[in-house]
Amino acid sequence: MLPQQRRTQLLEFVTSLGLPTLAGLQWHWLDQALIHPSAHLDVDNDRLEFLGDAVLRHLVTDFLFAAYPTASPGQLTVWRSHLTSDRYLASLAERFDLERVLVVGPTVDALGRPRRLADAWEALLGSLALSWGEATLPRLHHWLDPYFRATVEELQRDPAAHNPKAALQELTQSRWGILPEYRVVSQSGPANAPQFGVQVWIQGQCWGEGVGSSKKAAEVLAAKAAWEALQDQ
Amino acid sequence: MLPQQRRTQLLEFVTSLGLPTLAGLQWHWLDQALIHPSAHLDVDNDRLEFLGDAVLRHLVTDFLFAAYPTASPGQLTVWRSHLTSDRYLASLAERFDLERVLVVGPTVDALGRPRRLADAWEALLGSLALSWGEATLPRLHHWLDPYFRATVEELQRDPAAHNPKAALQELTQSRWGILPEYRVVSQSGPANAPQFGVQVWIQGQCWGEGVGSSKKAAEVLAAKAAWEALQDQ
Repeated sequence: MLPQQRRTQLLEFVTSLGLPTLAGLQWHWLDQALIHPSAHLDVDNDRLEFLGDAVLRHLVTDFLFAAYPTASPGQLTVWRSHLTSDRYLASLAERFDLERVLVVGPTVDALGRPRRLADAWEALLGSLALSWGEATLPRLHHWLDPYFRATVEELQRDPAAHNPKAALQELTQSRWGILPEYRVVSQSGPANAPQFGVQVWIQGQCWGEGVGSSKKAAEVLAAKAAWEALQDQ
Repeated sequence: MLPQQRRTQLLEFVTSLGLPTLAGLQWHWLDQALIHPSAHLDVDNDRLEFLGDAVLRHLVTDFLFAAYPTASPGQLTVWRSHLTSDRYLASLAERFDLERVLVVGPTVDALGRPRRLADAWEALLGSLALSWGEATLPRLHHWLDPYFRATVEELQRDPAAHNPKAALQELTQSRWGILPEYRVVSQSGPANAPQFGVQVWIQGQCWGEGVGSSKKAAEVLAAKAAWEALQDQ
């Protein structure tokens, strides 16, 4: 049995989620989903995250397949990458203030926060799957499809805003069947605060350039510039 | 409507699969799952593969989670990688002689065969999911869990036989929390038939060595040697 205080806290949390039903919820799974391994308790959410990750991927895939019957697999893959990314899952977790019910250890770092929230969100879906059995997917669709739909609509309006590298890749693949090439062209600044300059090349031409504190950050900026330049073509 | 000949062929094929039921099967989805893009017909299996890939991953994850309640997520991940690998899916497709009903173009190459069979196998699962709706996962579990179970039992008996690199990684991670390091130590032979020598180093010591016609092949042999050497520890 869970302590009364934890049970109250969890009940308040799941009530706020807007699930289609609370019937069948198994509190010990829900509790476990919201215990990060850093807490070093007897149970944690790592196995539930393993399960929930696959449930989520199936759910998102199902949704995209049915909602966008004429979209290419390449396009669907770009959207799926977004809807299953740590960043997106962390944003859903934040929307419901999952952090207030997440048990963590005393030494967790701020850098790992998005990953921690995303993992707990996946574990939450895993705990619902164990509670609901065969009714899981329809119930999760009822609950989460509206969020997925709104997000895909945003991506359709402005694909480059969310994941410029994926948007650029999708564009070059569909137009020319090739991938953009990123080249690091400069590195400056002290070792603890380096600045990287990156160019993105497509078919022998530089289409965009970016500077950032990591190669990845610079690539993202370069991709955004290139994507915008190609839109004008 | 499918031509009578194709329908007869597909009926024979699905009958041979040992599905728990043929009720509800939608023949046009089944037909589409078994059309490779190389055939350049009006429809092909690329979207169904996108769907089936996620169904399969969910199915395998569900199975592993329930069947091995004390296994670590790391161990589950190694098994899942195997049960969702092109090589394993192609072996299932071969067991049921899927190739005889797969429509391909005239120019497909032998090298792409495992990938082609694996993709069609995933698309087949996608077509069953569209036919069966909510009943999909229980029916697929009934059909495929026995194969998954037998395969995991084999992997437990001899983890290194199937995927030596994954087995070695699992071992070094669980024992020391580190990854093995592969080093190319030699390259010889003519350009069209090179031979690579690779060593695998763990904690400052070389534990295995392999020679092969690609770096990957040499790494696999080195990993197998290292895994066996570490078993004797």
